[in-house]
This record gives sequence, structure tokens and C-alpha cells, in this order.
Amino acid sequence: MQDALLALTKYWTDRGCLMVQPFNTEVGAGTMNPATILRVLGPEPWHVAYVEPSVRPDDARYGENPNRLQTHTQFQVILKPDPGDPQEIYLASLEALGIDIHAHDIRFVEDNWASPALGAWGLGWEVWLDGLEITQFTYFQQAGGQTLDPVSVEITYGIERIIMALQGVSHFKDIEYAPGISYGEAFGQAEYEMSRYYLDDADIEANRRLFDTYAAEAERMIAERLPVPAHVYVLKCSHTFNVLDARGAISTTERAKAFARMRGLAREVSSLWTARREELGHPLGVVSRPGLDGADAEPLLPDHPVELSGPAPLLFEIGTEEMPPHEVTNTVAAVREAVATKLGATRLGHGDISVVGTPRRVIVQVDAVEAREPDADRTVRGPRVEAAYDADGSPTKALLGFARGQGVDVADLATADFGGNQHVVVRVVDAGRGAVEVLSSLLADVVSELRSEKNMRWSDPALSFTRPIRWLTALLGDTVVPVRVSALVSGRTTRVHRIAPEPVVTVPSAAGYLEFLAGHGIVADPSVRRAAVVEAAAELAAQVGGVVDTEAEAGLIDEITNLVEQPNALLGGFDTGYLELPEQILTTVMRKHQRYLPVRSADGTLLPHFVAVANGACDADAVRAGNEAVLRARYEDAAFFWRADLEVPLERFKAGLTKLTFEEKLGSMAERAARIETIAADLAKGVELSSDDTAALERAAALAKFDLSSQMVVELSSLAGVMAREYAVRAGEAPAIGQALFEMELPRSTADALPSSTPGAILALADRFDLLMAMFALGAKPTGSSDPFGLRRAALGVVRILRETPALSGVTVDGGLAVAADRLRAQGIEVSDDAVAAAREFVVARFAQQLRDEDVPADFVSAVLPGADAPGQAVATLSALRSRAGDESFRALVAALQRINRIVPAGTAASYDPAVLTEPAEQRLVEAVSALGDRSGRPVAEFADAAGALVDPVNAFFDDILVMAEDPAVRSSRLGLLATIGAHSPRTVDWAALDTALG
Amino acid sequence: MQDALLALTKYWTDRGCLMVQPFNTEVGAGTMNPATILRVLGPEPWHVAYVEPSVRPDDARYGENPNRLQTHTQFQVILKPDPGDPQEIYLASLEALGIDIHAHDIRFVEDNWASPALGAWGLGWEVWLDGLEITQFTYFQQAGGQTLDPVSVEITYGIERIIMALQGVSHFKDIEYAPGISYGEAFGQAEYEMSRYYLDDADIEANRRLFDTYAAEAERMIAERLPVPAHVYVLKCSHTFNVLDARGAISTTERAKAFARMRGLAREVSSLWTARREELGHPLGVVSRPGLDGADAEPLLPDHPVELSGPAPLLFEIGTEEMPPHEVTNTVAAVREAVATKLGATRLGHGDISVVGTPRRVIVQVDAVEAREPDADRTVRGPRVEAAYDADGSPTKALLGFARGQGVDVADLATADFGGNQHVVVRVVDAGRGAVEVLSSLLADVVSELRSEKNMRWSDPALSFTRPIRWLTALLGDTVVPVRVSALVSGRTTRVHRIAPEPVVTVPSAAGYLEFLAGHGIVADPSVRRAAVVEAAAELAAQVGGVVDTEAEAGLIDEITNLVEQPNALLGGFDTGYLELPEQILTTVMRKHQRYLPVRSADGTLLPHFVAVANGACDADAVRAGNEAVLRARYEDAAFFWRADLEVPLERFKAGLTKLTFEEKLGSMAERAARIETIAADLAKGVELSSDDTAALERAAALAKFDLSSQMVVELSSLAGVMAREYAVRAGEAPAIGQALFEMELPRSTADALPSSTPGAILALADRFDLLMAMFALGAKPTGSSDPFGLRRAALGVVRILRETPALSGVTVDGGLAVAADRLRAQGIEVSDDAVAAAREFVVARFAQQLRDEDVPADFVSAVLPGADAPGQAVATLSALRSRAGDESFRALVAALQRINRIVPAGTAASYDPAVLTEPAEQRLVEAVSALGDRSGRPVAEFADAAGALVDPVNAFFDDILVMAEDPAVRSSRLGLLATIGAHSPRTVDWAALDTALG
Repeated sequence: MQDALLALTKYWTDRGCLMVQPFNTEVGAGTMNPATILRVLGPEPWHVAYVEPSVRPDDARYGENPNRLQTHTQFQVILKPDPGDPQEIYLASLEALGIDIHAHDIRFVEDNWASPALGAWGLGWEVWLDGLEITQFTYFQQAGGQTLDPVSVEITYGIERIIMALQGVSHFKDIEYAPGISYGEAFGQAEYEMSRYYLDDADIEANRRLFDTYAAEAERMIAERLPVPAHVYVLKCSHTFNVLDARGAISTTERAKAFARMRGLAREVSSLWTARREELGHPLGVVSRPGLDGADAEPLLPDHPVELSGPAPLLFEIGTEEMPPHEVTNTVAAVREAVATKLGATRLGHGDISVVGTPRRVIVQVDAVEAREPDADRTVRGPRVEAAYDADGSPTKALLGFARGQGVDVADLATADFGGNQHVVVRVVDAGRGAVEVLSSLLADVVSELRSEKNMRWSDPALSFTRPIRWLTALLGDTVVPVRVSALVSGRTTRVHRIAPEPVVTVPSAAGYLEFLAGHGIVADPSVRRAAVVEAAAELAAQVGGVVDTEAEAGLIDEITNLVEQPNALLGGFDTGYLELPEQILTTVMRKHQRYLPVRSADGTLLPHFVAVANGACDADAVRAGNEAVLRARYEDAAFFWRADLEVPLERFKAGLTKLTFEEKLGSMAERAARIETIAADLAKGVELSSDDTAALERAAALAKFDLSSQMVVELSSLAGVMAREYAVRAGEAPAIGQALFEMELPRSTADALPSSTPGAILALADRFDLLMAMFALGAKPTGSSDPFGLRRAALGVVRILRETPALSGVTVDGGLAVAADRLRAQGIEVSDDAVAAAREFVVARFAQQLRDEDVPADFVSAVLPGADAPGQAVATLSALRSRAGDESFRALVAALQRINRIVPAGTAASYDPAVLTEPAEQRLVEAVSALGDRSGRPVAEFADAAGALVDPVNAFFDDILVMAEDPAVRSSRLGLLATIGAHSPRTVDWAALDTALG
Repeated sequence: MQDALLALTKYWTDRGCLMVQPFNTEVGAGTMNPATILRVLGPEPWHVAYVEPSVRPDDARYGENPNRLQTHTQFQVILKPDPGDPQEIYLASLEALGIDIHAHDIRFVEDNWASPALGAWGLGWEVWLDGLEITQFTYFQQAGGQTLDPVSVEITYGIERIIMALQGVSHFKDIEYAPGISYGEAFGQAEYEMSRYYLDDADIEANRRLFDTYAAEAERMIAERLPVPAHVYVLKCSHTFNVLDARGAISTTERAKAFARMRGLAREVSSLWTARREELGHPLGVVSRPGLDGADAEPLLPDHPVELSGPAPLLFEIGTEEMPPHEVTNTVAAVREAVATKLGATRLGHGDISVVGTPRRVIVQVDAVEAREPDADRTVRGPRVEAAYDADGSPTKALLGFARGQGVDVADLATADFGGNQHVVVRVVDAGRGAVEVLSSLLADVVSELRSEKNMRWSDPALSFTRPIRWLTALLGDTVVPVRVSALVSGRTTRVHRIAPEPVVTVPSAAGYLEFLAGHGIVADPSVRRAAVVEAAAELAAQVGGVVDTEAEAGLIDEITNLVEQPNALLGGFDTGYLELPEQILTTVMRKHQRYLPVRSADGTLLPHFVAVANGACDADAVRAGNEAVLRARYEDAAFFWRADLEVPLERFKAGLTKLTFEEKLGSMAERAARIETIAADLAKGVELSSDDTAALERAAALAKFDLSSQMVVELSSLAGVMAREYAVRAGEAPAIGQALFEMELPRSTADALPSSTPGAILALADRFDLLMAMFALGAKPTGSSDPFGLRRAALGVVRILRETPALSGVTVDGGLAVAADRLRAQGIEVSDDAVAAAREFVVARFAQQLRDEDVPADFVSAVLPGADAPGQAVATLSALRSRAGDESFRALVAALQRINRIVPAGTAASYDPAVLTEPAEQRLVEAVSALGDRSGRPVAEFADAAGALVDPVNAFFDDILVMAEDPAVRSSRLGLLATIGAHSPRTVDWAALDTALG
């Protein structure tokens, strides 16, 4: 292993990298070493390589897990600026390490890196060696909140993993570290003991104090304008945070707060560093961009336009570094659209346009492109004839100017009629351009306008795309179409597999390009690749009597299709022992982490096999063995937690919640769980529940959140709820209880399912009411794009559950928040009325937004907001209103109600003395009002049906009666009568808004 | 520079070293990395090499000093076990670095390393390259309080220094770190900013909290039996301590406490580590010692004794690695003594014995050693003749047994007379042994019995000496004398300069060995080397019109003589600008740090030149330039402080004392200085002072200790007092004030001078009374060998000043301590009477010990202890007593007083009624007593002279009078009369002890 580190050091220093030392305070990754995170800032060049023992307390496993270490060894490289071919340089470094890149499956798999704590992000890949992530490869886009210019390439090798693969050992302890000395012999004890510290023994209070002290020192150093020591303390904060996290002492809310603090510090350190480097005059110089500025001077098109003899096929290939799978699809579509539109805007004749793509290329093929555009006539209008010639018929100055401007002789001018006026005109022929000329700029525009969902920059500062664009191939027939986009210039070469003997090949002609690529092992058409994947997967699965569910896995197959240029599927297996783990864990790991297709028996049972799809030719046995080893390690990790957790009684998990702080002022997670339990009990009072449901709810509420203290959930927080169900049922709880605990966490995202059981829905509501009310009590409401506590998601969850769970029609937002507020107050936490109102308003706003997103007109939304407290009923109200929107009598009713609304002053008592209302119109309205009765609490539909009878009497009343009578008693009774109508109308509708909506 | 690190890494990994990474928390040295400090423990082998950026906040200089960095780069190598030739392997590594070891002066200069904080020590050297320390080379003897077996060799390269020498640059910032990038460009900002943190901006309270938190975590981890995380926290403690120290926030006493705490932790970590490795079954195996055990089996002497034809000279050389200079002298003497004694105990005839030595060898030469010992006769006594033969003259069983036991026939027995008894005897001839046989074991004993003041162990576990013994050369004439000591076996080769083309040469014969060595450039005789040094120094100094004061520098010349095997003196110079610094700083740096001889003009003025003495041939210009660069850097460092300090007004220094904590419970150094000021004022009341002295004392007391907050003293604490004088006088204070401040710190050691001025002496006393009383008040008295606060030295200082400063005869220990106690109490610190008594007892015990060390008989010492409170007077008393020790009348007086002492019960009132004392003997004694009067407060000499008149009356009284008369009044008066004699005798003498002394 030490030879590997020396080989890498030599490889990179030979290529101009500075060698520096690991940082001398604990860092979680080489990125945090100032040699990366500060040096990527600003305009100075910086090429550096170093080893970084990276401390991740969370990964501590007492040295028992074969692949996880609390301290693993990174080898970190920064190339600033991007040299233009970093992937190729990187692959050569693997060869320097002794990896046969021809035998193995090496892939660049999308990985978008972001470190909120560092205010940094970048796009790039995990590099996979037979499914094993051996390197992080990132184009650094931002650090410390600053946009980076120039962009740096960051290459981070995971040394232990690489060495295990190289040495063919399955446990890091078996690595031969130096001749005759194993990793375990040399460092096993430290691994065990540091694991003990991080997982079991670190003093939580002491580490909290350390965190605060470090943060304060960082702040002081920032105030002193000393970014270097400030950064040291930010790193110490970060490590201490990680220690607390590994000890299970960090709750979601604490995490958000700590991150916010660290991010703020990191930003200040970065801007200070940038400023200080500038003050120092950039000691290392400033990056120059040779070729970019000078290139513009060279003419792109030849002096004499290329003349083609006849129609020819166009090939245009945009060559990229590996695009994310979904961007392959998006880009193919976008390019097809752009080419079609732009070609349509020219006069160039052409046949079919087809666009296909792989992760590394988008290929445009246009049939039968004409050699030239046809010429086109055009008439240019000049001065009016009267103004063109003077009295003696000589051309005026105006005419002479026009002729000169058009470059024609006065004699060649004609006249034409424009709206009854005669003008001098000149007829111009727009000569058709040659195809090369047309395409040259058209294709350049296609490239420069390319964008993806998430764009990055690289060495070429004028471009921005999902990943770097590295080459352009443009041929019309067998002629190169010159295309220049910033520093990129098209040619007749393309790139095939990087491991091919000749990775750059010359394309003879546009015709037959896909076949040409196929000859180099590249399947350019995604539909062909997909079919190949599906077919190969079926064949391989059949070998072990299984099937791959291609419908269920459609999304994954799409992804796989766009992860390779040449699918090479292979069958792997895993130890049946792992099948004891819940299937959800196994398949999640396969799909999300490894992009393996699960293999099932005909009855759907998971088999201990998987289909992996490599890219191109390789040594199948080696690649299979590698992939199996990776899966084994991942399953081993999961099994470690699973087995450990199964030893723990639920009550102990539950007790463990006292050690998890939810939020400093709000106490522990145990207190939060207790609040949820009582809130749920309170909500249940308003719901009709079977005795089974009541029992399940009570028990589930008592266990609420217990799995947060399980190791599995501490490690994989996305399994919260899932593991609760697993562990609860295995501990002997009834399935309904497990289900309720699972559903309590639903919905986890906008698209997620809702609880299906009533106990689950009640718990889910109780959870969210508590979170919302607690955070609003602290004044921690979301601002702008920042919602660290996920309050928007929680509010939307409340709305969705209430909308879609009829059994809970008795539950209201107000009621839920009120109960939650009471519980918080019972715990001694101050909850102001304003906070409750703000929380309600926030939830209602989510509801309104949701309705608008469903294309409900804004005025209708406003019309039902008074009833938004019960979203289910509000939706019913909305439905009732909209179904009557075309109904004239309903519109008349609304108009009448709005008329009343306008005239009755606010606060008018809804009472009247029938005795003084003696006029017929008055009497008629009194009768109608009495007949209708008080329907303020009734559904709108019922009211609408019944209240139609009011319309005529109201209108007659307004026609015949002067409401503002001089006799105060009369006036008061008249107003009171009208007010009674308002008071007896449903309060869940804003009639004024509705009136506008029906407008 | 990065190439150098890679070259060293390659060099050492090629030689079987493991490569590890720098530690990921700040360490002050590579030694503290667990890869050294823990791995050297226990029996496992461990060869390791690594880079270690070493953080020394104290060395922070904002990047301005050419040679000092807050973080410098060490390259650390551990060889466990010692391979036997580590120096040679090391020298080859310098060549691998590109150093021409033939051109430069490379020397191994004694350096005994100890880290109290790590409970570790070792012996070894600084390796000098042209006077520049480039490497620490240590045989690790103890770590964490454990004796190491096997011993490890630790080699620590100072990379920046080496590279500066290699690249010929004079500032670290100018080092070319990588092609085209300088050290300053890459790391200058960090150097500046971290300097700012360490020197100016680190929050002291925060760091104190960190220290305590870290220490507590270390303690908890020790309790959990986890030495690895415990060690991490010990390191964090250590760094934090260093930060506080650099901020000037650590007082002497705090330092002692912190060290004690860290040492305790380090010891526990070490023993825990050792235990844990044993529990783990020593994963890396156990060191074997090939050759050591098996070697005993081989016969050393040939079967047939070597027969020499006649007398021959003996050469015996003990070859070592570089001994410390003073050990060369000691060892030469010890070997001379041992050889002479041991040879004298044999019968082997020989001529003169001469022993000479160099740092690498001790050479014994004995003239004309005889080929054999002569035979010797011996008579063995058997049974008495009567018991030897029975009645009929036949041999008895006793006789037969004797004969058989002696292996002789009965017939061969004789008889001889023993004290008048006839015994059977046998005459035995002890055959003389051959010279080779005699010398073989004799010389082995000389080696195995060799010891020095401070001994170490190395690869050979059976030996122990000041430095490793690596070879033995033993020739008698031209015959090898086989000598085996453990694994060492003598031969006929010796080693010459390590850089010689053939470093190991064969010695043809014992004769002419010194000439043989001279032929290889080695001057074996120290007196010849010394003369060469003196002569060359004089010549070189004369070149610049100067001289070297060989008398004043005698000690240094002795040291230089034994630092080289072949003196090669050269003249260097330094910038005259540095002459602005106080001479004491310049010469201290030259002598103590560099072993350069200062060059002065005839009138004693320091000239900007020095004489350095290299070892053997080298490129004089390169070596001179190197040495000059080293001195320049050291002077630059001193000048930095000097200039900075001169900017600071004295009052600001004084104010700075408030920031220096003296001891937590005792407050700041400012409070201590204030106490000293008032104690001095109090002491001065009892002393006659001129008005000038009074004024000087007052002002000096007001400034007391101000220089402790100067940068120079913070850096070089040994200059405390020296700098006070310099800064005070330069700030315009009177010379007497500067002198008093300087003398306040005297005596700094047992041999140091005492204050010469009375104000200085008073301040020195006040300082020490405060320290002693304060520490005893806290119960912090020295125990065993531990005296972290230097209380023994302080007490001895008090005694010496009081003994030797007549002007202070009015000052007593009791008085001084009482004043000090009052001052502490005034500050709110509790001082018990017991504490005052214990402090007094402690000082008196030092005084008694001092007297005993001066060979004063113990009883005399006891006799004057009652007056020890005033040591000056006690010494006078002692002198008076001892001068009269032979005087019969004085002895009679003492006997008489002791007689009285024995008979008078304790507590008897010293009064009598002359009226009842009517007997003549009574009346005579009453007269004598009255005539003598009360002399209890008078000097003993006066009393002795006057009291002689008492002897006869006392003796007559005892002869004639029965003291215990029946009449109580008479008895009471008789006893009262005797008691009066005791009461009127000086209280400063213990007459009983004196009586024993005169015995």
C-alpha cells in the first residue's frame, strides 16, 4: 500500500503537482485541507497532490467491517485550472498504480458533490472499478459560497478500496501495507480504539463545549482577518460535530443549526482568503488561458466557400465527458428540437433529422442536406417617387443616398405601390448560402445554447453544460463543417472507448456513422442499448431460474442504458445469508448504490443474484468478482447494523431517544416523541376509531420514533419508519403497530404515498403538528429558499393527509396546532398566540399554493380559504362552487350576497325587529330569511341549493327599500336583516372573492 | 524540497521502513506521533519513516525570521531495534539527499534529549552540517516512564534547514519548494497568519478551557483502557499548552503543574499501550537478537594457547560512537585506572601504560608486555600432623582425603608450622598464564565495567555506556588478543573518519598505532589536539588583528578538543550590525549554541569574528559559509526580540505581568512582583542603607520582574535579570537600579555568583522568601527527587546570601518568611503557622546540608542549628566553636555547661535567692555568674572567652554542694542559679550537641 501512495505521488509530481502534507488537524476529507478548499478560490494556479487520512467517526466499525474505517486514506489531487483532459490523465494514473484498465470495468458514474458545511459544490462522478467506487472526480464549481473561476478538477482516490481490489483481499485488515506487514497488524488497534471513542466513549458534553469554543475562535479569527487560523477552527468544529453525530447526539434540527453556523464561517473564511490573496498580489500568479483569446483571430471558414456537388448527409457529434443518464435523454431531445428549429429558420433543404446519444456523445444526423440554400428575391422600399426626383426629373439627394446605400445605380431602380403611394424600390436577390456556411454558425449556436438541469463550467469559460464538452465532429458528406464554439473547433475525429488502442479515430464520412461507431464497440442508439440490456438481463436471470422484472425496474434500466456506451451485462451473486435482511434494504442497496438489477424467482421472491451492466469488453470473471465483493461489503455493513439492532429491546431504543437532542430549547427526541404521543391521543378523540385501531394507535404512539436511536437509522436516516416497522414486528408487536410506525413518516416527499391506516395518519399528523408548532414557537420559520427544518414539507404533508383521509374529516389545522401548542406549553416552552397564528397561516399558504399548482384559479382559491382549516372540506367546497360556476341562479345568489356584503357595515348585529319591517319587500325578505334558517355551518352545496330562493326577495328589497331610513330603529332592523343573511351563510366561503372569481 | 522528502521516503522504505502519514492533530515533533512514542514501547519490531509538520507556536515569527517557523517539517525515522550501524546508514541518507558529505563538516554533537511531558528521554546527538543542526539522532531509552527494551534509534531531520543549506538560500521563504514555486509563495501567508494566532490572537481563556477538556477526555479514555484516543488527547493538551505558552500565559509554576499532569497522563497511556499490545499478542512479532545468544557457544580462545616469543606492546582500542566531550576525558582516566589496577592484580610484567582518547575511541597502549606471567608457588594447609597419621603412622582418612582433594600422592606431602602447630601441607605451583589469555579476560572486564555519568543502552543488551561501543581492536604486537564482551568481539581493524574512502582499516601492529592513526588524519592524543586548536585559533584571530582569550575560554577549548578527531579551525565573521546587541547575548550564542571561540581586540572589545573548529578535511569555504549562515540566523532571532523589546516602555512590560499567571491560587506574576516589592521594603527596614541604595532599591523593587514579559526573556528565560538590566538602563534608569534588577535573580545555580550590591541582595531574598512561603502555603513542598518549583535552589540561595552578605546580618530566615507570609495573607491567601514552620525547617535543613557538604562534622552542624535562623552568624559561631575545639579550657566549659544541662529539669526558672546560697562554693558561683552577666544574645566567641571563669566555680559547686537539698527554698535557688548560667549562655548553640562533637 505504501508503494501505491509513493507511485501516485511520483505520478502526479512528475506532472507538475506540488506535494503537500496531510493536514494536522482531523479532517473528514482531503477536500477540507486548505490545500484544496482555500486554494481553489481565486485566480492563482494550483496543482497539488497529497495523502489525506480522512476521519469519519460515523464510519467507525471497531475494525470489524471489511470496508469501513473511521480513518481511511485518501489521495487528493487538485488541478487548477482544468487541463482539458483530466479523465485521461487520471486513467493513466490507475495504470501507474498497476491496474489493468483493459481487464476491468471502469466507469464514470454521475455524482454531484455538495458540502453545505463548506458552502461548496461541484459536478462530476464516482469512478467505479468493477462497481467499486475508487475515486471521486469533481469539477469544483463553488466553494465558500464563491463561484470558482477558474474551475478546479478534484480527484480523490480511496486508497484502501483500490488496494483491496488490487491485492484481491476482502478485508482492509488483510491489506499488505508494507512487505510482510498487514494493515491490521500495523493499525488494527488504533482502528478499534478510535471506533470505541467515536461510537461509545466520547464525552458528549465535552464535545459540545469544544464545538462552541472552536466556533468562537473561528469567529474571532475572522474578525482579525486571519483566514488560515479561522479555517483551522472551522475544521475542528466540523470534526467535533462529526464526533457528536457518531455518538448519536445530533438531531435533525441541531444538524441544521450547526451546518448553518459552519457554512456561515466557511463563507467568511473563503471571502477573507480571496481578499487576502489579492492584497498579497497573488503570490502564485494568475491563471492564463492560452488559445482562448488568440483563437478568435484565425479565420474559421476558408476564403473560398466550400462548394458541394449535391445533397449530402450531415453528421454532427457533440462529444462530452460522461453525462448523467437522465441528461443523455434530455439532451438528445433538446438537440433534436434545436436543430430542427434552427434548420427550419434557414432555406437549406434537408431530409430527416435523427438524434441519438450515449453518455459521451450526442449525434445529430440529417439526411440529404442540400449543397446550398436557394436564392431569394426581396424588394427594398426607397423614398416616395415625389421625393425622389426634383422638378426637372433629376434624382434628389434622398434618392442618390438610397441608391448608394443599396449599392445600385439609380438607373437600376424601379417603382412600386405601397398603400397607394408610389415608392422607388430596388429588387435584391438574397443569394443562398452554401450549406457549410449555414451549418457552421447554426451548429455553433446549438452547442453554445446547450443547457441542462444543472450546469457546470470547466476549462472553457464561455460554455456551461451538465459536463464538459470536449470535442465536436462535423461532417457534411466527407467534408468537415468548421464549427467553433469558444475554444472548441470541430474536426473529423471522434473518440471511442478510452481504453481502445486508438482512442481517437478519424471519421471517413457522415454516411454510416452509427455503423462506424458500432465497429468501435459503441452502441449509439439508446433504444438499441436498452433492448440489449433487457435481453441480456433476461438471459442471465434465466441461467439461475429467475427473471428480472423489467416493468418494475424500467427506471433503473433507463438509467443503466445511459450509463454505458456498450452494454455488457453479467450475472453476479451474493451469499444467501444476506437474504435474512429485509428485502427493502437489499434492493435499495442494489438499485440506488450499485445500479444492479435484482433477480427474482417467478413468484417474486428475491434470489441471491443480480445483473450488473459493464461498459464494453472486459475480463468478465474479474469484473464479476469485483462487483460481488462490493455488494458483499455493502451488505456486510447493513448486516452489521441489523444484527446489532435486533439485540436491542424496543424499550432500550426508546430510552435511547433521551440521548438524542432534538433542538436545544426543545429538549430531547424523547420529549418530542412524548409530545407526539399525547398529540395523537388528542387528535384521536375527534376521530371514530375501531377498538383495534385505538389499541394500535396507542401502542404505536408509545413507541413513536424509537428507531431513530437504532444504528441502522443513525446510519441510513432514510430508513426511519421502515426500520421501525421491521424492528417492531420482529420484537413481537402486532403488524398494525408496525404499519402505523411506518406510516407515521409518510409522506417523505411530495410524490410519496400517504398513510393508508388511520392510526398511521394520526401519528403522521401529530408528528408534523409538533414540528411546525415547535419551530414556529421558536420563530424558526422558513425564509426564501432556506428551509432547514423541512417545514414546508411538513405543512404540505398535513394538508395532503387531511385532504385525502376522509376518516380524519374532524381534524382541523387549528385544532392540531392548538393541541401541539398546549403540549409545548406543558413542557414549559413559551408559545405565543402570534406563533400559533403564523403556523396556521403557513399551512394555509401551502394549501393555497397546492391548489394553485393544481391550476385552480386564484380567486377560487381565495374563495375557499376561510375553510382551509379543514382542507378536505375546503376541497369539497371548492368542487361545489366550481360545479356551479356556470349556473346563472347561483351566480345571481353570489351577486346578491356580495351586494349585501358591500352595504352592511362590519360589526352590524345579525338581528332585526320584524315589527318595524312593514313594507312588502321587507316582509317578503323576512319570510325568505326565516325559511332558509341558519346554514352557516352547512356544506356550501346545500346552502347554494336552498339559498336560491333568496335572490329575488333580496333584489326586490334593494329595488324597493331605502335601507338607510331616517328612523334609526327601522334602519337598524333593515341592516340587521341583511346581516342575518350573511351570518346564516357558510363561513367557509369568501363570497366577495367568489364574486370576483365568477366575474 | 518535495523531491528531498520523496528521496528520503524512498531511501528509508528501501531499507525496510514502513511509511506512515503525519499525525492528524497538531504535534510539536515527529516524536509525539504514536508511530514513535507508542511504538518504541514493548518488544515489537518497528521500522518507520514519515514526514511530520511540527508545530511550535513559540517559534512563530510572522515568517520574518529566516530560520524559524511556527510549523517546520521534520522527517522522522525510527529503527527498532538499533541495527548496529545507524550512523552509517544515516550518513548515506544525506548522500541520497544530494549532500556532499566529503565537502562539508558533519559532526555528531552531544545532545541529551528529554521530554518531561512524555516521560521520555534518550541520549544521542545533534548532527551538525557546518555548524547547522540538521538532525536529532537519539537512542531512545525511556518513554512514558518505561525503560525501553529493545532500544530504538530515532532520527529526526530538520528539512527546511537541510534544504536551505542545499539550495544555498538564507531565508526559508526562498526555498524552492517545487519547480518554480518558492516556499514563501506557497506557504508564506499561512506562516504569517498562524504566527498571528499563536503570538497575538489566540484566546487565552478559551485555550485554558480546551486544555482542561482535553485532559479530562484523556483521563476518561485511560479509564476505558483505550490508549490510542487517550494519546490523541494528550497531544491536544500538549499543543494547547504550547499555544498558551507562546501567548505568554504560562508561568513557571503553571508550567510545572501542567507538565506533571501531562507526564502522568503520558505514563498511563504508555503502560496501557504496552498492556494492550501484550493482550493482542504482539501483532507485529517480537524482536529477536540474532548472534547474541548463539555467540556464547563459539570458543573465543584457540585450543592451543598463543605463545609469544617475547615482550610486545599492547594496543587496545575501545571504539564508540561520538562520546560527549567531558566523557572523553572521564573515560580516558577511568580506563587508565582500570587497566593499571587490573594489570597490577596479575603477574604479567609490562612497561608504561598510556591512555588517550578522541570522541570515537579510547586507546590503551602498554609497553613491553611479557609473553607470560611467571609461575608462582603456593602452600596449601592440610590437617594437623597429629590428625594426619594414626598411632602406627599410617595416613588417616583425613589425610587421604586431603591428598585426594589436592590431586597429589601422600608421599609428596610436606609439613609446615602454622602458629606453633605442625600441619601437613602441599606445595602447589600456579602456572603463569600466557599474556593473551590474561589480557583476553582482563580487557573484556575493562569494557563491561565501563560506565559514564549518564549511561545508555543500545542494540547490545548486556552493555551500558555513555554512547554505544561499536568495535574493539586488541593487538599484542601483531597478534590479535581475542576479547569478547557480549556480542562484541575484538579484531585487528579500526575505523577512521566515516567519510574516508576506506572507513574501516586493518591495523598492522600495536607498535606505532598513534602514528598509524595520524596517517589516517586522526589526532588521538587530546593534548596534541588541544594545542592545535589553541595555535590555530591564535593564528586565525591574528589575521583580523584579534586574539582569542584562551584562559577565559579554557573550558570551551577543552570541549572543542573533544568534539573532533582532527581539529580544522577556520575563521568566520558576522555582520558588525549585530554588535549592537549586548555582548552577553552574542557570546552566549557563540559558546553555548555553536562552540565558536569569540575573537576580541587587544582591549577586549568583541570583534565580528569567530573561530569554528571542523572535524577533518573539508571544503573550507563551504564550511565557513555554512557556519556564518547559522550564526547569522541565530543573531537575527535575538535581534528580532531585542529590537521589539526596545520599543516597549518599562511600564508596559510591568503591566504585562498581569497577563502572566504565576500560579492559579497565587494570582499573576504582577501580584508576585508586588509582594516582592513590599517584602523588600520590609527587609530593608532592618538594614542600614545609604540614601542612594535606598532609592535604587525602591525603584528596582517597583520594576521587579518586569523583563519576564519581554519577548527576549519569554524566549530565553535564562536571560531573566540580564535583560532587566539591559532594558532598564537603556530606558534611562540609573545603573544601580539595573544592577539590582540583575542581581535579584542571583544566584541562578549552586555555582553562580551572589548579589554584590545590598539592594540586589535584598531583592534576591525577597524574591526567594516569597517563592518559598507561597509554595509552602499551598503545601507544594519538594518530595524525593521532584522539585518542580526549584524550592531547594531558592532555599540555598537564601542561605548563601545571608551567609555571605554581612550587610544583611540583621535579616533572619524567620523574619523573612514572616514578612512573606504576611504579604500572602494580605492578598487573601491562607498561610498556616505550620506552613511557616515547615518553610523555616526546609531552609534550615538546606543550610545544615550545605555545612555537611563542606565537611563540617554532623555534631558541629547540630550544635549551631539553634542559630541557623541567621546563617551568617551561625557560620561565625561555628567558626568560633571549631577554633576552640582543641582548647582544654573551652572543652571544660562545654563539659560544665552540659553537666548543668543534664541536672537542671526543663522549665526551671532562671532565678535564685542569693540569701539562701550561703555555702562558699555557692557564693563563689553566684559571684562568677553575676560577673559574667547575661550573654545569651552575644557572640559565642565573646561568651567563650568570658565564661571560662565559670568552669572552676561550677565544678567546685558540683563537688561541694548537694543540689537537691531537702529545704525546697535552698534546692530551688541552687537549681535556679544553675539555670541562670544556661539562660545567660548564647541561645545559638546546642551545648549538648557540641559536647558530643568535642567528645
